[in-house]
Amino acid sequence: EIIAAVSDALTPNTALAGKTVLLTAGPTREAIDPVRYISNHSSGKMGYALAQAAALAGADVILVSGPTALPVPPGVRRIDVDSALNMHTAVFEHIERCDIFIGAAAVADYRPDQVASTKIKKTGADNLAVTMVKNPDIISEVAGRTNKPFTVGFAAETNQVIEYAQDKLQRKGLDMIIANDVSRTDIGFNSDTNEVTVIWPTGQQALPQLDKAALAKQLIDLIAQQCTLLRC
Amino acid sequence: EIIAAVSDALTPNTALAGKTVLLTAGPTREAIDPVRYISNHSSGKMGYALAQAAALAGADVILVSGPTALPVPPGVRRIDVDSALNMHTAVFEHIERCDIFIGAAAVADYRPDQVASTKIKKTGADNLAVTMVKNPDIISEVAGRTNKPFTVGFAAETNQVIEYAQDKLQRKGLDMIIANDVSRTDIGFNSDTNEVTVIWPTGQQALPQLDKAALAKQLIDLIAQQCTLLRC
Repeated sequence: EIIAAVSDALTPNTALAGKTVLLTAGPTREAIDPVRYISNHSSGKMGYALAQAAALAGADVILVSGPTALPVPPGVRRIDVDSALNMHTAVFEHIERCDIFIGAAAVADYRPDQVASTKIKKTGADNLAVTMVKNPDIISEVAGRTNKPFTVGFAAETNQVIEYAQDKLQRKGLDMIIANDVSRTDIGFNSDTNEVTVIWPTGQQALPQLDKAALAKQLIDLIAQQCTLLRC
Repeated sequence: EIIAAVSDALTPNTALAGKTVLLTAGPTREAIDPVRYISNHSSGKMGYALAQAAALAGADVILVSGPTALPVPPGVRRIDVDSALNMHTAVFEHIERCDIFIGAAAVADYRPDQVASTKIKKTGADNLAVTMVKNPDIISEVAGRTNKPFTVGFAAETNQVIEYAQDKLQRKGLDMIIANDVSRTDIGFNSDTNEVTVIWPTGQQALPQLDKAALAKQLIDLIAQQCTLLRC
């Protein structure tokens, strides 16, 4: 047993050798006009940690990233995007070649239906209505493909976290979903630690609060396991 | 003349000695729900550079800052805020004691009229209307006070820059306005240089493209000059 543990620690991690992993990370920004936009509190830290862990596990990694202040992890190819539409385009330019897709970005569900080409002036009106239209659902489209990659999503919720995550897993046809409670300020968005529950169609696993790098390694191990079981 | 120039270079800059300068900088974030917000592309760099230049000119400086990635300039007291309403509160807590007010923040004109307490779920609806209400106009309120401070505003415009700036100067009763064209990607928002035209009721001055620290020094000199003329 001791020999096995030592041997395990000395063996390079090759859980994803030969695999291509496509990830999304960070927020998206949906322009209202050239100056204003709608965004969200995602820092990109969890997605970047997963990209790095996947690279360390031997994968070829493509990271499609919304605006963040983070450096490109070593061994990772990053493609920078801003809006959900641009993220959609970048993802589907590379989807054919990937074995595993991890949608860690906080993609805006809606965008303003019109982007003003010049800055909107404040008018005399006390109210302003911004009409929003639905963005494409990137991860649903990925999971709906014939020969789909092993598809991993996130559920960042403020309430009924596990219930919403299980519903999202089934509804979108995902292979795995990582659920976390973003109403807690000690974990999640912009924090350096996270505490998640991982759910897949035949099981689930609660993980303890960990820094995002350690958590990412655990998640990549779980993804590699399930991916192997499904011969992805 | 040479002696005067050398003497000038050796004299500490005391243009604002004994003055208190209150500045706002950065964007504001207007919450839609705990995860989503509306913001803008202001990086805070110009406002922070002005705060530093004012401190170097001997002023006591209070900087009310929206969310930025910038460090507090030496000698500056920073108060962190997020929304326009919080910025408004912080400004009026300190307005009595200031001689000069510089509104460099890109304050959201509007905010969502209701902030959802839990994350809004994507519904079946293809459209979503966000109803916005007007935020208080911080700089107009400052300029409208009896015994108002010397009040400096910004006009970040994408078109008809000078015309809009002159109109804003008069309409809001400002003492000075700094106009820049944010449609140019080489200057302005998030750039390290800027090129502006400064307008006051009795004159105007176009400044060349400069890095923001050098430009801030020029602007603080112009502000100190006009402030002295008005015995502020």
